[in-house]
Amino acid sequence: MRDLATMTWRAVRAAGATEIALLPIGSQEQHAGHLPMGTDTLLAETVTDAALRRLDGNPSVVRLPCLPFGHSPHHLFAAAVSLSAETLLAVLTDVLDSLTQSGFRRVLIVNGHGGNDEVMRLAVKRFALRADVALAACSYWSLTPPEPGVPGHAGWFETSLMLAAHPELVGSPTPRPPVIPLFDRPPHLGLTVERHGEWARAGGGTDDPTDASAETGQRLLEARIDGLVAAIRAFDEATRESHGKGER
Amino acid sequence: MRDLATMTWRAVRAAGATEIALLPIGSQEQHAGHLPMGTDTLLAETVTDAALRRLDGNPSVVRLPCLPFGHSPHHLFAAAVSLSAETLLAVLTDVLDSLTQSGFRRVLIVNGHGGNDEVMRLAVKRFALRADVALAACSYWSLTPPEPGVPGHAGWFETSLMLAAHPELVGSPTPRPPVIPLFDRPPHLGLTVERHGEWARAGGGTDDPTDASAETGQRLLEARIDGLVAAIRAFDEATRESHGKGER
Amino acid sequence: MRDLATMTWRAVRAAGATEIALLPIGSQEQHAGHLPMGTDTLLAETVTDAALRRLDGNPSVVRLPCLPFGHSPHHLFAAAVSLSAETLLAVLTDVLDSLTQSGFRRVLIVNGHGGNDEVMRLAVKRFALRADVALAACSYWSLTPPEPGVPGHAGWFETSLMLAAHPELVGSPTPRPPVIPLFDRPPHLGLTVERHGEWARAGGGTDDPTDASAETGQRLLEARIDGLVAAIRAFDEATRESHGKGER
Amino acid sequence: MRDLATMTWRAVRAAGATEIALLPIGSQEQHAGHLPMGTDTLLAETVTDAALRRLDGNPSVVRLPCLPFGHSPHHLFAAAVSLSAETLLAVLTDVLDSLTQSGFRRVLIVNGHGGNDEVMRLAVKRFALRADVALAACSYWSLTPPEPGVPGHAGWFETSLMLAAHPELVGSPTPRPPVIPLFDRPPHLGLTVERHGEWARAGGGTDDPTDASAETGQRLLEARIDGLVAAIRAFDEATRESHGKGER
Amino acid sequence: MRDLATMTWRAVRAAGATEIALLPIGSQEQHAGHLPMGTDTLLAETVTDAALRRLDGNPSVVRLPCLPFGHSPHHLFAAAVSLSAETLLAVLTDVLDSLTQSGFRRVLIVNGHGGNDEVMRLAVKRFALRADVALAACSYWSLTPPEPGVPGHAGWFETSLMLAAHPELVGSPTPRPPVIPLFDRPPHLGLTVERHGEWARAGGGTDDPTDASAETGQRLLEARIDGLVAAIRAFDEATRESHGKGER
Amino acid sequence: MRDLATMTWRAVRAAGATEIALLPIGSQEQHAGHLPMGTDTLLAETVTDAALRRLDGNPSVVRLPCLPFGHSPHHLFAAAVSLSAETLLAVLTDVLDSLTQSGFRRVLIVNGHGGNDEVMRLAVKRFALRADVALAACSYWSLTPPEPGVPGHAGWFETSLMLAAHPELVGSPTPRPPVIPLFDRPPHLGLTVERHGEWARAGGGTDDPTDASAETGQRLLEARIDGLVAAIRAFDEATRESHGKGER
Repeated sequence: MRDLATMTWRAVRAAGATEIALLPIGSQEQHAGHLPMGTDTLLAETVTDAALRRLDGNPSVVRLPCLPFGHSPHHLFAAAVSLSAETLLAVLTDVLDSLTQSGFRRVLIVNGHGGNDEVMRLAVKRFALRADVALAACSYWSLTPPEPGVPGHAGWFETSLMLAAHPELVGSPTPRPPVIPLFDRPPHLGLTVERHGEWARAGGGTDDPTDASAETGQRLLEARIDGLVAAIRAFDEATRESHGKGER
Repeated sequence: MRDLATMTWRAVRAAGATEIALLPIGSQEQHAGHLPMGTDTLLAETVTDAALRRLDGNPSVVRLPCLPFGHSPHHLFAAAVSLSAETLLAVLTDVLDSLTQSGFRRVLIVNGHGGNDEVMRLAVKRFALRADVALAACSYWSLTPPEPGVPGHAGWFETSLMLAAHPELVGSPTPRPPVIPLFDRPPHLGLTVERHGEWARAGGGTDDPTDASAETGQRLLEARIDGLVAAIRAFDEATRESHGKGER
Repeated sequence: MRDLATMTWRAVRAAGATEIALLPIGSQEQHAGHLPMGTDTLLAETVTDAALRRLDGNPSVVRLPCLPFGHSPHHLFAAAVSLSAETLLAVLTDVLDSLTQSGFRRVLIVNGHGGNDEVMRLAVKRFALRADVALAACSYWSLTPPEPGVPGHAGWFETSLMLAAHPELVGSPTPRPPVIPLFDRPPHLGLTVERHGEWARAGGGTDDPTDASAETGQRLLEARIDGLVAAIRAFDEATRESHGKGER
Repeated sequence: MRDLATMTWRAVRAAGATEIALLPIGSQEQHAGHLPMGTDTLLAETVTDAALRRLDGNPSVVRLPCLPFGHSPHHLFAAAVSLSAETLLAVLTDVLDSLTQSGFRRVLIVNGHGGNDEVMRLAVKRFALRADVALAACSYWSLTPPEPGVPGHAGWFETSLMLAAHPELVGSPTPRPPVIPLFDRPPHLGLTVERHGEWARAGGGTDDPTDASAETGQRLLEARIDGLVAAIRAFDEATRESHGKGER
Repeated sequence: MRDLATMTWRAVRAAGATEIALLPIGSQEQHAGHLPMGTDTLLAETVTDAALRRLDGNPSVVRLPCLPFGHSPHHLFAAAVSLSAETLLAVLTDVLDSLTQSGFRRVLIVNGHGGNDEVMRLAVKRFALRADVALAACSYWSLTPPEPGVPGHAGWFETSLMLAAHPELVGSPTPRPPVIPLFDRPPHLGLTVERHGEWARAGGGTDDPTDASAETGQRLLEARIDGLVAAIRAFDEATRESHGKGER
Repeated sequence: MRDLATMTWRAVRAAGATEIALLPIGSQEQHAGHLPMGTDTLLAETVTDAALRRLDGNPSVVRLPCLPFGHSPHHLFAAAVSLSAETLLAVLTDVLDSLTQSGFRRVLIVNGHGGNDEVMRLAVKRFALRADVALAACSYWSLTPPEPGVPGHAGWFETSLMLAAHPELVGSPTPRPPVIPLFDRPPHLGLTVERHGEWARAGGGTDDPTDASAETGQRLLEARIDGLVAAIRAFDEATRESHGKGER
């Protein structure tokens, strides 16, 4: 595993021509009463680092330090360290621009927080029009077939993963109100619905974490790590030859 | 059907307390050699207006003029009238803010262009944190179970719909290059991939429109109109009582 | 009449070298108790489309879809769908930039709302410095010698035009307060004066619409249509040869 | 004459309740071969200071330091110190906001450069919606009935004024190309036309300064000073009672 | 002394290749009960103009009009005309960009207000990356070895300088509260500390002006003028040969 | 030591009333041929964590995850992951705003990169005017009396510190050009000078790292850790009582 923070600039420049730069992004935000603020950051890093170890340099990937803050304005009713959508878009664009100026042609963003999703995809789509690059982005839970309750927020899925990856940071779930938040289960397929105050009404979580377990978490985690390993290989194969061939 | 443009301001204010405001948004952008620039706008309006006629005021909806321009920088290699992501986000935010200041508490955006998706969802999520409102957003093709090739761009799906809705505007498809664009069929599940120059390489479309037909288009259109009718009813029911109950 | 929304991108590109692109812009805003929210949009489109029919392709003009929203923050005390000055400037700049990238060298904006005037002119002046283009802009009521009471807001002029163009949308004028708004009749020649709350004090209009009539409206409308016909011909003649000759 | 720069903050606060704050704005930009870069600033200050002397405190006006830079991107082909439209709008908005926070309720902007016009009016219109103030703006040449050739740029009008006010700064006019710039004499009434490169083609001026004279300049200057005296009195009378009565 | 405002554009262009452009910047802000709002502007101009007279064209410097407004949000609790940090950064960047487009390769900013310091340095650092220029910036009080109480705000230092330079504008100091503001004397070396409301608690000044005198002021002023003379010569020598040699 | 990322939101909220939030910020940028890209981040974290261990909860500090990217546009000639000044200002403002919304009243930023200095101070000054908070900021090397060559860039100081803190990441210094960069040794006291291309000419460093040693580094590091311990205690004492007492 190659860590950009520990490489000299000449090593970084040399890597740019053929290697993939990987940026993990997370969040610091309320995760109900039993999970830590940094849950999304911790899980994005856990999945990323395990995948990079399994890849073992094949393909070679330069890992950037994780951006520990994401777009979490909906969690400020409780506690969060949140970047606005404009700020996060600017950060990602500046990072992509810097990497390109430093010689990289292929970049992958691995996301740990649902609220970063739209901004991350906007950043990638926009930057690929500006420079001759191949860019990829994913949320770590999306690389396997969809399952009910995945990812949710501070519920069964995330609690299980944290029990597997960081059990010392998981507290006892507190009871949550019997509210099904509208944004999480919209009243019709394909509809995005956002109602003021919904996160507070739902007690900061989307579903009941009671059934979470470390065993389930280990299984769910393994699948995501495998998914990221496969996704990186697939991105590498699809873009290894073609980058540098774009027209204007 | 109630059209905001033809109502007086007192009628608009009176509607705001209980009715839903609906904003269609589209685009002007290349749609290969056989479909018109305004395809996405035309289809968003076709689906919206048919759905509103079927609803027949139950629930009552105030329809805004369609925003005819969307976020289409990836089509400027050929021709487009495109708003940047920042501009489109500002437009949608200004519209939501105006509607709220004018008395509305429930707004639905109906989108006809895939490239607007992230910005539309960001706008809705962000504004619902700022004001005590219930907001919804959808792309017209997403309100029914997913099908292969839906929506694509200038391919089988859109060509069929246009043959059903505006046959006089559909030309003969020109042959397209045998390129499968990476953004449309990413190399791994859950991966967003954007490669510089890909739209030009793919000839401006995602799939072959040869098999498109008016009959297919009529069937696909009906399903979307029914989907929008059901989605508006569901949004109305889910939010009729609750708006105005949000906490800060 | 050629409508960009119904043209293929190749037709658009082919038109760009010699034809003029025309963008109508309007507003959605209170027009006192008797005129509809979309009055400015409707009148800009009425004048534009009649002028284009009379020109009959000589010179050839590609008409864009109308931007139905304008800069109307002063009408939000009642009801409006308003873009901020920054947003409208961004929209117009993005449209001009898109048209230039799509091959046009001559663009005309036809405006229906006084509040758009400064932003429209800024957009045109600024963009002509950035690209080798010839740009024009006008408000539809300014193309004929000045008359007292023209255009005003929701008064004699606009009510007459709407009685001629869209009589079914005109209600009975409600009495207005005997306030002469300061912004409309400034206390000294050449002075722009804006006082907080003035629009509400003036009841949303500038002058008494009682004397409006369809006959007057038809006369006023004809003069503006003729004015726009003449203006388009004059712009075409003045710039037909010269565009493409600019130096940097 | 009261000069904000030489007053203590308590004197400024005390003035705010009843006095008018006056901000002159100018530019630094090419004025052909015979007039100095600061022509617009010098003339705005000349007219302002003469008018304030004639008013002699009746009404009382607090004069701010002149903003010496304006919006002059069209003069950068030769030489200018120009603020972008966004920057100038931000400066004027910050100044209006500061004056309001410091206690003023009435502000007048006196402009010396045509290119500042749209931004100045936008700033005034927008700020009057945000705060309970009465704002006025004018360009010094607009306060008298229109005359042909007024103001132009570096031509008969400005050269005459400078010969009267600052003869030591006026050089010999150089011959100008026989180009009638399109922006200055648009091909149709009411049309704003901007063509790339036009200022350079016209040699940086709009008309021939040969007939300019100090006598003419003195007459033209007197009329503008009288105009500003009358405009300040009229603004004072129109707003003396009403400010503070606005509703939100 | 060469004043940009009184030069023609051709003289400005001719100067650009070898001469240094100098921009003084100041502020309008409360200076306790005895000093005028424009203190910082007046002192920046006093020091600058005396230094330029002493240099007597060796090296040759083109002096721009002073920017009379700075970044003073912390003084709005009393009275100020303040630009936000973003606005001031935009103004300085626009000025640097204009000067470069007008032919200058070397620019010096002379600042009179501590609150402008960070923005001034950001502007200079950023612009030097964009264009092949050599830029310098200083605050007039920093060009001599540090002394206790220099510069402070409205205390011994500034009062002494004003007694020397503009005695007619200096009033009797009013007693100030015995508060030592945290921002001025931070609790630990190297710590920037800002506490809400501190300026108001400290009565708008940092230290007692009682001991100020014109004699002291003259001495302090002379040292700063000599400092600026030496600094301009040093900047000229350090950059006379090298500008134009930068690589990208 | 309390780590925000591992705390639940209720623990964060409970801490806000009395504890200090601490945000380390660093950079990823070229550090000549022998130091890693993340040098500034690593050293900011090293000093911060050692200081927090020594404080041992007295006073209690909640440590945020380090922002690993800073403002490094001047290092992009080689390699860097840089945020623009606007982006970094937005990030810091969003973080301060989030912490305030989450209940904190006292925040300290500990910086590891000189290029962040102006933006960090702007952020702190500006935010303290908006909210009733006490904010502090420092660069880790500034908390002890100034020494020659401190901090420099990739020279004796930083190399010594890295030899003490992370010897495994330090390579052999490559020879550097005999250029004394103008920005690092300005030609006159108090002058900021920036010349295009200077960083590249200086080979990416400010001074010769040959004499660096782990022993020196350990001594320098200890002094900074002690400095930060003392600074945190001093900030705590100075603001423990007063926060919450600010007026508007």
